[in-house]
Amino acid sequence: MNRTEISQLGEFGLIDRLAAGVKKYQPTTQKGIGDDAAVMASSAANELYLLSADMLVEGVHFDLTYCPLQHLGYKAIAVNVSDIAAMNGIPRQATLSIGISNRFSVEALEALYEGVNLACKQYNLDLVGGDTCSTKGGLVLSVSVLGSVAADKVTYRSGAADNDIVCVTGDLGGAYLGLQLLEREKKVFLDHPDMQPELAGKDYIIGRQLKPEARTDWVYELLELGVVPTAMIDVSDGLASEIMHLCKNSGIGAVLFEDKLPIHEMTYQTALDFQISPTTAALNGGEDYELLFTVKQADYKKIEKHAQITAIGYMTRSQPGAWLHTRNDQRFPIQAQGWVHF
Amino acid sequence: MNRTEISQLGEFGLIDRLAAGVKKYQPTTQKGIGDDAAVMASSAANELYLLSADMLVEGVHFDLTYCPLQHLGYKAIAVNVSDIAAMNGIPRQATLSIGISNRFSVEALEALYEGVNLACKQYNLDLVGGDTCSTKGGLVLSVSVLGSVAADKVTYRSGAADNDIVCVTGDLGGAYLGLQLLEREKKVFLDHPDMQPELAGKDYIIGRQLKPEARTDWVYELLELGVVPTAMIDVSDGLASEIMHLCKNSGIGAVLFEDKLPIHEMTYQTALDFQISPTTAALNGGEDYELLFTVKQADYKKIEKHAQITAIGYMTRSQPGAWLHTRNDQRFPIQAQGWVHF
Repeated sequence: MNRTEISQLGEFGLIDRLAAGVKKYQPTTQKGIGDDAAVMASSAANELYLLSADMLVEGVHFDLTYCPLQHLGYKAIAVNVSDIAAMNGIPRQATLSIGISNRFSVEALEALYEGVNLACKQYNLDLVGGDTCSTKGGLVLSVSVLGSVAADKVTYRSGAADNDIVCVTGDLGGAYLGLQLLEREKKVFLDHPDMQPELAGKDYIIGRQLKPEARTDWVYELLELGVVPTAMIDVSDGLASEIMHLCKNSGIGAVLFEDKLPIHEMTYQTALDFQISPTTAALNGGEDYELLFTVKQADYKKIEKHAQITAIGYMTRSQPGAWLHTRNDQRFPIQAQGWVHF
Repeated sequence: MNRTEISQLGEFGLIDRLAAGVKKYQPTTQKGIGDDAAVMASSAANELYLLSADMLVEGVHFDLTYCPLQHLGYKAIAVNVSDIAAMNGIPRQATLSIGISNRFSVEALEALYEGVNLACKQYNLDLVGGDTCSTKGGLVLSVSVLGSVAADKVTYRSGAADNDIVCVTGDLGGAYLGLQLLEREKKVFLDHPDMQPELAGKDYIIGRQLKPEARTDWVYELLELGVVPTAMIDVSDGLASEIMHLCKNSGIGAVLFEDKLPIHEMTYQTALDFQISPTTAALNGGEDYELLFTVKQADYKKIEKHAQITAIGYMTRSQPGAWLHTRNDQRFPIQAQGWVHF
């Protein structure tokens, strides 16, 4: 039997290859694999159901040395809600399956559920089931969220058109630098257990890493403003990766302006402390769970004054691929990273 | 901080404890944690959505020494479809999240997906998404299935009433004895790698273990016969455990007759070979994924001639708890086992 290493294909290559054998049997399935969430028609013509799934693995996605179990529970729900938000949908129900070893006590699991329950409250979401089973070692969390969206409001990755404005909510790169800080302090702690961690004044970016929020608030805001984005995706793997998804799925190019990227002051300063370019942190950091979306120019006027929104570029038919227009007026192709866990 | 070992509570105690903090926010949630699948109302009054989730962990739920990846993929889907069938529902869409280490090649994953795709075809189910991520070691599969059922046909664990007939599809104990055989041959192989496994003539029970089928066929049959069970559950943890769930959730007792338990001849013979009581195998074996259900006496007449159905007892208000009426006319309380992985 031929043996191809998973690392040869990468995450997206692997998904493409596995998805190639997947067929469609149900008339209610409107969109399967390939967006932030699957889209299913309900029997009422004006509503669609959304289904998303994510898995979080100890030692890969989280490190219990510095990630409290409450925060982990919260994050597990929030990152799935973020996928529903990226379809312009509202989360309704969730299932949580956990694989645990006897390393964990009942109280530890209760702490995890405390975070899960808090996230359910925050996003107005019902935890309706799941599975609890044992593993030989680490902790594994698997969450599915069912959401809904009006049929005329669903937003795919594929609808961006020529001259649409590219916007992003909030700011970028913070979660990545929060992680760098936590990793540095972990290393210091392991080398010198008597030293206190130096995290004072870094609450914002630590919070961005440990307790990310899904931008369901922006989905409600869009509804109120009467705007439907032409395409949308959540920033989980980093802006570079996400804009390339929008370009690929929409069959069109994009130009982003380096000087427009929204970077929090603390993110900026911390990036410099770590000798990382703030632009690189914003482009490739990931885990910010902000929404990256495109709107028609006419719609942009309705949202441009919103404090949480930054226009960072435009879609263009004339230049395929995603490009970064730098501060000194050069253009470079944006490179995606995806994850490189293997 | 207090430390309670998970083993002190057991599976069901743990679920009860964690479920205690779970609240309800969505009006569409009809039934959350506590049945085979969650039940959500759609916007059309006559249809309900069902959502189930299961996790399979290498070394706990499966052993790749004797479980081919195709079969594993098939089983991962089938066991979730079985939960939807246990609500009297039809599966529609599924998500599959897999955690894998670099021990696995792309071809190995394709073999896994081959089984998944075959199960989707078998059950007329669309695989619509999921997640692919890495683990430090073993393989973890997490599946969610979304199904639907007409509002007047949904079958909970809680509807069994006095004098209802207890029925089961197919036969019991085969999957458990298939596992015993595979474990024995694995041990022989590890001790004497040159010896051939002795599995000839044991296809049926090996198949029951490696490639279980969900009884969606029986859900369609019930629809055709115009029968709605009063309560239903799938036999994943063993008949003993499942009948106790029906009793507890319906607030009523049950009497099962030892001489009525449907046991395949190969299961019976193999049980004797292993010096296991065939009754014990049928009661506590688990993983048969048959449907255990109760029907009103009037409805029983409509199904009694069906080759796949065996009446094994009755529900009774006069004797709380689940009882086994033995061949020699004694009655013993049935003991549940659940899983004991911790």
